[in-house]
Amino acid sequence: MFYDAIVVGGGVIGSSVAYQLARRQKKVLVIDRGKTGQKASSAAAGMLGAQSELKGDDSLFQMARTSRAMFPSLAVELKELSGIDIGLQQKGLYKIALTNEEKEAWKQLGKSQKAVGETARWIDRDEMRETEPSLSDRISGALYLPEDGQVDAPKLTKAFAASAAALGADFLEHTDVTGLVEENGRIIGVRTIGGTYTGNAVIAAAGAWSASLLNAERTIVETYPVKGECFSVRTKRPLITGTLFTKDCYIVPKAGNRLVIGATEHVGSFDESVTLEGLFQLMEKARRLIPSLRESEMEDTWAGIRPQTKSGIPYVGPHPEKEGLWMATGHYRNGILLSAVTGKLMADQIEGKSVDPDWVTSGQSFITIEGGLS
Amino acid sequence: MFYDAIVVGGGVIGSSVAYQLARRQKKVLVIDRGKTGQKASSAAAGMLGAQSELKGDDSLFQMARTSRAMFPSLAVELKELSGIDIGLQQKGLYKIALTNEEKEAWKQLGKSQKAVGETARWIDRDEMRETEPSLSDRISGALYLPEDGQVDAPKLTKAFAASAAALGADFLEHTDVTGLVEENGRIIGVRTIGGTYTGNAVIAAAGAWSASLLNAERTIVETYPVKGECFSVRTKRPLITGTLFTKDCYIVPKAGNRLVIGATEHVGSFDESVTLEGLFQLMEKARRLIPSLRESEMEDTWAGIRPQTKSGIPYVGPHPEKEGLWMATGHYRNGILLSAVTGKLMADQIEGKSVDPDWVTSGQSFITIEGGLS
Amino acid sequence: MFYDAIVVGGGVIGSSVAYQLARRQKKVLVIDRGKTGQKASSAAAGMLGAQSELKGDDSLFQMARTSRAMFPSLAVELKELSGIDIGLQQKGLYKIALTNEEKEAWKQLGKSQKAVGETARWIDRDEMRETEPSLSDRISGALYLPEDGQVDAPKLTKAFAASAAALGADFLEHTDVTGLVEENGRIIGVRTIGGTYTGNAVIAAAGAWSASLLNAERTIVETYPVKGECFSVRTKRPLITGTLFTKDCYIVPKAGNRLVIGATEHVGSFDESVTLEGLFQLMEKARRLIPSLRESEMEDTWAGIRPQTKSGIPYVGPHPEKEGLWMATGHYRNGILLSAVTGKLMADQIEGKSVDPDWVTSGQSFITIEGGLS
Amino acid sequence: MFYDAIVVGGGVIGSSVAYQLARRQKKVLVIDRGKTGQKASSAAAGMLGAQSELKGDDSLFQMARTSRAMFPSLAVELKELSGIDIGLQQKGLYKIALTNEEKEAWKQLGKSQKAVGETARWIDRDEMRETEPSLSDRISGALYLPEDGQVDAPKLTKAFAASAAALGADFLEHTDVTGLVEENGRIIGVRTIGGTYTGNAVIAAAGAWSASLLNAERTIVETYPVKGECFSVRTKRPLITGTLFTKDCYIVPKAGNRLVIGATEHVGSFDESVTLEGLFQLMEKARRLIPSLRESEMEDTWAGIRPQTKSGIPYVGPHPEKEGLWMATGHYRNGILLSAVTGKLMADQIEGKSVDPDWVTSGQSFITIEGGLS
Repeated sequence: MFYDAIVVGGGVIGSSVAYQLARRQKKVLVIDRGKTGQKASSAAAGMLGAQSELKGDDSLFQMARTSRAMFPSLAVELKELSGIDIGLQQKGLYKIALTNEEKEAWKQLGKSQKAVGETARWIDRDEMRETEPSLSDRISGALYLPEDGQVDAPKLTKAFAASAAALGADFLEHTDVTGLVEENGRIIGVRTIGGTYTGNAVIAAAGAWSASLLNAERTIVETYPVKGECFSVRTKRPLITGTLFTKDCYIVPKAGNRLVIGATEHVGSFDESVTLEGLFQLMEKARRLIPSLRESEMEDTWAGIRPQTKSGIPYVGPHPEKEGLWMATGHYRNGILLSAVTGKLMADQIEGKSVDPDWVTSGQSFITIEGGLS
Repeated sequence: MFYDAIVVGGGVIGSSVAYQLARRQKKVLVIDRGKTGQKASSAAAGMLGAQSELKGDDSLFQMARTSRAMFPSLAVELKELSGIDIGLQQKGLYKIALTNEEKEAWKQLGKSQKAVGETARWIDRDEMRETEPSLSDRISGALYLPEDGQVDAPKLTKAFAASAAALGADFLEHTDVTGLVEENGRIIGVRTIGGTYTGNAVIAAAGAWSASLLNAERTIVETYPVKGECFSVRTKRPLITGTLFTKDCYIVPKAGNRLVIGATEHVGSFDESVTLEGLFQLMEKARRLIPSLRESEMEDTWAGIRPQTKSGIPYVGPHPEKEGLWMATGHYRNGILLSAVTGKLMADQIEGKSVDPDWVTSGQSFITIEGGLS
Repeated sequence: MFYDAIVVGGGVIGSSVAYQLARRQKKVLVIDRGKTGQKASSAAAGMLGAQSELKGDDSLFQMARTSRAMFPSLAVELKELSGIDIGLQQKGLYKIALTNEEKEAWKQLGKSQKAVGETARWIDRDEMRETEPSLSDRISGALYLPEDGQVDAPKLTKAFAASAAALGADFLEHTDVTGLVEENGRIIGVRTIGGTYTGNAVIAAAGAWSASLLNAERTIVETYPVKGECFSVRTKRPLITGTLFTKDCYIVPKAGNRLVIGATEHVGSFDESVTLEGLFQLMEKARRLIPSLRESEMEDTWAGIRPQTKSGIPYVGPHPEKEGLWMATGHYRNGILLSAVTGKLMADQIEGKSVDPDWVTSGQSFITIEGGLS
Repeated sequence: MFYDAIVVGGGVIGSSVAYQLARRQKKVLVIDRGKTGQKASSAAAGMLGAQSELKGDDSLFQMARTSRAMFPSLAVELKELSGIDIGLQQKGLYKIALTNEEKEAWKQLGKSQKAVGETARWIDRDEMRETEPSLSDRISGALYLPEDGQVDAPKLTKAFAASAAALGADFLEHTDVTGLVEENGRIIGVRTIGGTYTGNAVIAAAGAWSASLLNAERTIVETYPVKGECFSVRTKRPLITGTLFTKDCYIVPKAGNRLVIGATEHVGSFDESVTLEGLFQLMEKARRLIPSLRESEMEDTWAGIRPQTKSGIPYVGPHPEKEGLWMATGHYRNGILLSAVTGKLMADQIEGKSVDPDWVTSGQSFITIEGGLS
């Protein structure tokens, strides 16, 4: 079979791309070297934090808020197609200031967002502690971002994949892609350990593992891995309502009195193990933020490897040199948030539709490196 | 603290009772000897099969359809309170006939239900295979029960418990109840391995393990355990839409291309292990019913211990001899389906409200046995 | 069948008793309410620390060193019968002093042990760090106890149980004991949720859960639960050779570059969950003791409920009031170490052999409490 | 660092090679793309079946019996270095005949082995059932191979790896090898997703995943994957003593009353999932062979991907074209058995020692394929 599109990587990005293409009657093949949705996508805390870090004039901001706005209807569509509830919660995000410097900075952040039409409100310490009484009194206040929310990240990925499958997409698991198939200067397929598959478009969506695929022929797409460690706890009752976000740590309330706490940042590491020190530092920050967390029950610990780019902007667009090869990677800590718009953007481009040029990775993001990534 | 009610057992029945009481501003304590929702409640396949086995004039039928009708609004309430989606699917149940005898019997069953206002429609083999093309051609047809549905049983239990907790109910896990506290001929509390708790009502809702609590002072409430083994598989695409139900085996489609297949019946066993032969027999039946199941991926196997009563009618009401002691057990294979109405019924009775006397276990269900259960 | 002995509890104590009885051709039944060996026995770190805390003239010391001395031959016997290697390591234990006060105290401890013929040697900081170079330099030295060692606790329990089964002992899992059977003032069996079993001796060996069984008829055997939380890590290479033991934390090197770190002490708790704060405090102590532990990989966290007695002496002997009822519980943190001798001691007593009277719990350990344990 | 050897793949073969090289003071790096020992090596049942299938004059037979003979001393060495007991059992293997044709064939097999000095004895049905009373009476007898035995495969792999690490070998997990580094026509290292590593020898020991590494520059080393599904059960008592081996199924008794039952054969599949039908067929064979297995408790199911070669002979030797590149793969179902000798053989060759030329893969095993493996 000659596919309309072959997606390499069955994480949240690859599955979203597959879903959008399948909705448009494209014949799609998704290839994953393990099981779909097992890597960074299911390690994510699932925040839809369009406003938690991006300024109103940041190049990613417009993309982020567009993606965030897609989730309410996506939740309905995906539930209908796959039966999976993605756990969308729209209860806001509190960007906590721990110092006066942070207080000023967060206020500026909010201001920049209000300038482009978003809601952001400064809440002082006392009001904040009234809103979330479990919070420590050692905070300076918080920027309240009512439009930011969250989803259940593992379920979102499963829902994209199952919905794509329900619409006819093929999924090939446990299959390593070992190279690209080129014909007359155009990429027309992939070689895998289990055979060759051909199609009209090949989309590299393998997160931190995309680099070797994209770097065919010495053109280097520069991404690097950033390990993030997380843990979760169970509490007897809900401790918080909205998501708490500080510079070093976030706490996301999940269904059933679970809290997900993340995340460390280890640049350069592909090692998915959780270190004692990583976990320890995270626990220390979390228990300072919410003192009553100390009595909570440890549930799980895990890590994910996020793909970062040198520019900080994800690669979403055509490969700069190889026709037929497309890129959807480098989403770093915004993979869940940006998955919705990334899927649509890729499908639009592959269909040849016009898209906002600001959202497509332009040529200058690519550099040629002698000697590889090491 | 003197509780309004102490519920012994944090499974689906106990948690539903606690939820209904907490909604009415009662102060409730739920005691579980392990973690809540870990036993038969999370082993269940989650069918809401009011019509799959009960005749229209069966004494349980009215209770079953009343309970089934409560789930749509329950799903909304519980999601709101706990964030947990209970996975309600209302896509009908097909009671498959494999022989002509079954065909006649199922038709009679449907007739009896239509006589009391329910929908039930006979579907012949060809129409059935058009509706569910994965089905074997060795069937005789099916009774289609469009109102029967299903939920995700582990999530339903978690949602009841988390919602009750959100409304103020206390949960005490890892706590063995070792006896009842009696004062002036009235049960006023429980002794546990970690101390004594007192309250206005004690509700035995510990499923198959309720007997020793209820049988204080030689009055025997006769329940016995029935082990049921199940397994689940993953398929690449949805194989079926509705639930398939045969005399010996059922196949329930779950979100994300999972199928739950159950269940064996081992009378008298408290042993929660899955036997090779139990699993083998179940697999054999399932692969005959849906031949393409052979390529599916084994996901998990498990067993649950269901509480059965001699009469076949669950105990939902006051203990016949001990004032202050209440019973909510003996739901056998209908625990998930009947959990909704059982919670309401118990709360009504404990509040002193009048309830349909047919639904409350009457005295004749109880017998006195010399020498115990062995 | 009328058994020679019915052991209630299939943990390390119950399984050791069953093993010793089965070796003597007794017909034994072991009843466990879950699976055997799943509670405190498999939560233990497995230290054989006869000298780590007991003074030479401590009443338990003689019992402890006798038990420790049994392990080398036990390891061989159990491997032969069950195929299970109990992971006996005889590489010594270092009782680390962190302050000068501890230094003096540990030296005194060693002196008291040398007085009764044991080996114990003070090692100063520099020698200690030469021996175990991963250790922090903030220690004052250590008492080296070369005869103390360790086993793999879960495997020891499994090996006792499998060896007893190989010698003919019956094991009944998933079976709650609900009461004792008494005849003419003598205990002759147990009632369980699945029937009644009779025998010549009933041995309560259910650890922290033994109390309700032993406290028939208002005579209180006073034990209380002490929860201990632990965690384990993986290192790339062996960090230490011997076991490190401080006042608050121990680190036990296991096969395959694993380290087990324990344990917190929560008096009165039957709750087997690991709290954030318990884990955090333990991690803090461990990373101070071995700074390079910070890079290690978190593997698992768990908790066990240890049975403590008011006197601090385990109950190993006949029940003070009920003929036919025996006790083997209250071993607190010494269950693994004392399991060997406890098995032998119980078997000797049940056979009517004379035993060292100092090792058998005497009457004065028992008290009558009004109003129960709470 | 310039390594003496870089081993790609941390399974049983790679770890054995690393262990033998580390023992000879070589500086070794083992690179695994996941965790070491997680693939086929830990899926294996651990049989040391040198005589179960190979004729006395088979080219692999000499290698197989040499390897088998190494295990007793290996067990001691690895336990000493790593603390891990590899679970060596030397209780023989019974090659069961189910038909008269098999009876004649197995007798011939034994005869061919006796001709080269091995022990093999025909046991008729009645004697066989006396020896292993749990066996079905529908067998025709068995060839008894007293020298064949078994180990615990996951522990063997861990023991090789931990022993190599203890001797100074470096292990790099979670690291994809993306290509070879070539200099002046010689392989001098590997490129990985986390950087480049150089060394004097590169050994491809990645099992079924070795092909892409070995097939640099269009020379095809022809291996293909064969998936094998297994399951394990727990029994209350030991059902069998020796390993039972039939044409389609084997049953291996493990420590602690576990039985491992394997294995299906799916040629061409890299998919590690267990299918319903694969498991079903295996269960059917096993319950016919040992009827009382029906009451056993299901414990686990799993699958592994074994690397097979077209000739059926593993590749153990230099790559036919690329100097500096070595191969140790293609062991199919004999990976555990042959791991011992493969490690030694590779270390000898890399050190430049002379080895038995019959055991080294010769040139004719390699062919050049146009268009790859698909």
